[in-house]
Amino acid sequence: MNVDSPSVSQRDEQRLLHVSRDELLDHQSRRLRNIVSWAYERVPYYRGMFQEHGIGPQDIRDIEDLTKLPLLTKDAFRATYPFGLFAVPQSQLTRIHASSGTTGKPTVVGYTAEDLSTWANLMARSLTVAGARRGDTVQIAFNYGLFTGGLGAHYGAEAAGCVVVPASTGNTDRQVDLILDLGPKVILCTPSYLRVLLTAMAARGITKEQCSLKVAVLGAEQWSENFRNRIITDFPYNITPVNIYGLSEIMGPGVACENGETLDGLTLWEDHFLAEIIDPKTLRPVPSGELGELVITCLTKEALPIVRYRTGDLTRLLPPTWSTFQRIDRISGRADDMFIVRGLNIFPSTIEEIICQFPELGTDYQIHLSRPMHLDEMELHCESSYPLASATSTNDIADRLTKLVQMKTGVSSKVKICAPGILANLGGSKVKRIFDSRMGKI
Amino acid sequence: MNVDSPSVSQRDEQRLLHVSRDELLDHQSRRLRNIVSWAYERVPYYRGMFQEHGIGPQDIRDIEDLTKLPLLTKDAFRATYPFGLFAVPQSQLTRIHASSGTTGKPTVVGYTAEDLSTWANLMARSLTVAGARRGDTVQIAFNYGLFTGGLGAHYGAEAAGCVVVPASTGNTDRQVDLILDLGPKVILCTPSYLRVLLTAMAARGITKEQCSLKVAVLGAEQWSENFRNRIITDFPYNITPVNIYGLSEIMGPGVACENGETLDGLTLWEDHFLAEIIDPKTLRPVPSGELGELVITCLTKEALPIVRYRTGDLTRLLPPTWSTFQRIDRISGRADDMFIVRGLNIFPSTIEEIICQFPELGTDYQIHLSRPMHLDEMELHCESSYPLASATSTNDIADRLTKLVQMKTGVSSKVKICAPGILANLGGSKVKRIFDSRMGKI
Repeated sequence: MNVDSPSVSQRDEQRLLHVSRDELLDHQSRRLRNIVSWAYERVPYYRGMFQEHGIGPQDIRDIEDLTKLPLLTKDAFRATYPFGLFAVPQSQLTRIHASSGTTGKPTVVGYTAEDLSTWANLMARSLTVAGARRGDTVQIAFNYGLFTGGLGAHYGAEAAGCVVVPASTGNTDRQVDLILDLGPKVILCTPSYLRVLLTAMAARGITKEQCSLKVAVLGAEQWSENFRNRIITDFPYNITPVNIYGLSEIMGPGVACENGETLDGLTLWEDHFLAEIIDPKTLRPVPSGELGELVITCLTKEALPIVRYRTGDLTRLLPPTWSTFQRIDRISGRADDMFIVRGLNIFPSTIEEIICQFPELGTDYQIHLSRPMHLDEMELHCESSYPLASATSTNDIADRLTKLVQMKTGVSSKVKICAPGILANLGGSKVKRIFDSRMGKI
Repeated sequence: MNVDSPSVSQRDEQRLLHVSRDELLDHQSRRLRNIVSWAYERVPYYRGMFQEHGIGPQDIRDIEDLTKLPLLTKDAFRATYPFGLFAVPQSQLTRIHASSGTTGKPTVVGYTAEDLSTWANLMARSLTVAGARRGDTVQIAFNYGLFTGGLGAHYGAEAAGCVVVPASTGNTDRQVDLILDLGPKVILCTPSYLRVLLTAMAARGITKEQCSLKVAVLGAEQWSENFRNRIITDFPYNITPVNIYGLSEIMGPGVACENGETLDGLTLWEDHFLAEIIDPKTLRPVPSGELGELVITCLTKEALPIVRYRTGDLTRLLPPTWSTFQRIDRISGRADDMFIVRGLNIFPSTIEEIICQFPELGTDYQIHLSRPMHLDEMELHCESSYPLASATSTNDIADRLTKLVQMKTGVSSKVKICAPGILANLGGSKVKRIFDSRMGKI
């Protein structure tokens, strides 16, 4: 339902993806002026913030003026819980989502009918760019409910004219049955859950010919280029893993998505989102192309205007390739996921990149941090890909891994290798990688 | 999105609900002719069935001719799994749902965009009749995913112009937080889960003034009039429990719904569904107003035409009251839920009606059937509503319950009364009432 006529929308989309940068910048500036006024006039919290910084809508003429505006953090959601950042009364919303809120109250977000339509169209654009086509069957194995993954993907797949199988999470055997019986070409899930599914399929002896899947659109968890390579080399299927990005404060899945043919980073839908990369400590812009924290401004969100939101995600901005839009690199960590061991900054993604280089190891892992004797200790738990022949081979792999981790991070770690499947993320929800039992946790 | 202009759609709906019976019959006959041709021409399984009965589309002129057509059972889904009953190619579907398939393969159903639009509109009509209004917040605590409850309710609430909180099932504490923080007027869930929620709310000391809920739309489980009374008397809230009916083979939730003001049985949306009541043994129509198995013909379903489907649900057909449409009585059992103890037919609903008459008992219960010594034994497990003062009072309640069950069913049973909350359905999914450990089970 609510699917635009394919010919019209596809033509519009094609044009839009290839407008000139100048046209895009004009468009962005116009939308930025609108949204800043919208936020200022309708949300007392923004008005207060802007006034504190001695700035008003009249000071924002084009996107060059963006940095004059103050940054917004997750604290703003907590301070105004549940509806204080909203620009429309609750009765004008069509849907409310909420993040899980690991500590205290959840982060509540809301959408007008227009916002949901924008979201569905951007998610449809993402799926199309990833490789889905009208009439393709799409199995959605993200969780449905308050989490934006399931319903966000669902509405997008519908808007793309696909046949949606709303499998939701869990029940791996049944997911495999659905793949065999309904023949989906595309699946959406977390990267760790894709691996669980493919492992189950391989264990059931399912051949490449029996597997209809061609594209896996992976999100809601950070993953590495080596993880992608491992999906391709470890399983006898012909599935292209494609990266998608989103977060509920901004919209949900479909903020940026990788092109399934070029696989060269995530194209950011710049007609709706402005991106900046800042140094998370100085809050200043980093030099072009360098790693830093992603800050997003939503140009079109009605219900919950978002101006300069610190996403907490670390990435870099990359120039356009196949379309007019700039790209972001895969998320290489979260500002708050970074952990410090003996004074050295480490991202889980660095550890993952290293582990994935070992074909003898699976891609699931845990990082255990402790401080038994005043000094931090790091222990990595990995799985072997297959039962290892001897204690000698286990020790050999552990030694090589320890050396590589020492070389890349500067930290000496212990390594524990366990049997295949022990650490797998069976639930399909976000996976926990870091187990920090240190007091203080610097 | 895809919400019709409220003025137009509401006016149309009002007119439709009050057309004359004659106009409705004409409309039904026209649609019946169409759908029978559609099924015959596009689905070889139907063509084969019809031909076996020596009947063709030309024999169906009006709804009087309906009984000439053969009955369809769930076996047809199994025999044609997964897509053999479909009238359109898979690529023309918009969504696929599947029932859980407790034994073997699930029952796969599919919808075109038009089917989904019909479903959303009928579910919106149901919610409106139940008491929801444009701009009201609606919390949906049915499971989202392949089960039709969550997504069916979701699209309906959106089409009704409501603000949807897609809470899905589980996490009762969080559900209560959402009720307190987001102020929903309407909740949709299973009757047993509503009781769990209200019990949790009462335990947290939440007052009537703090509880925004006014209407609970309850489905996916059979429940009794006494259960409704107990919801009203046991909790200090002012919530009207309203009955809704649906099943995935027919559409999903919203096939019939009770009027929240008259509370006099479920109005069946006869512009889209034809109902018959048959004797499940003789397969003949039962006399008007008598209990039997509900058979439904869908007048408008494109993707998966349904002609004379035996739902397995036992109910009776009731004349129209507040609208032109006939009503069905609350489902009083399933043809296959009925169990036989010492040669006597018993429905769980009969037991539930009796238990709910005891204010000292909760509404959760289990029926345990065994055959320790060649003879069937029935034991009822109930919960007390509050910790009971003495063994004497426990024995007294058990005695009275045993006598009442003997009187109403003819079977003498043992009764075990346990502490409050032991038997509660915490998961929010379908509750299990019967535990039958007999061999053979007849």
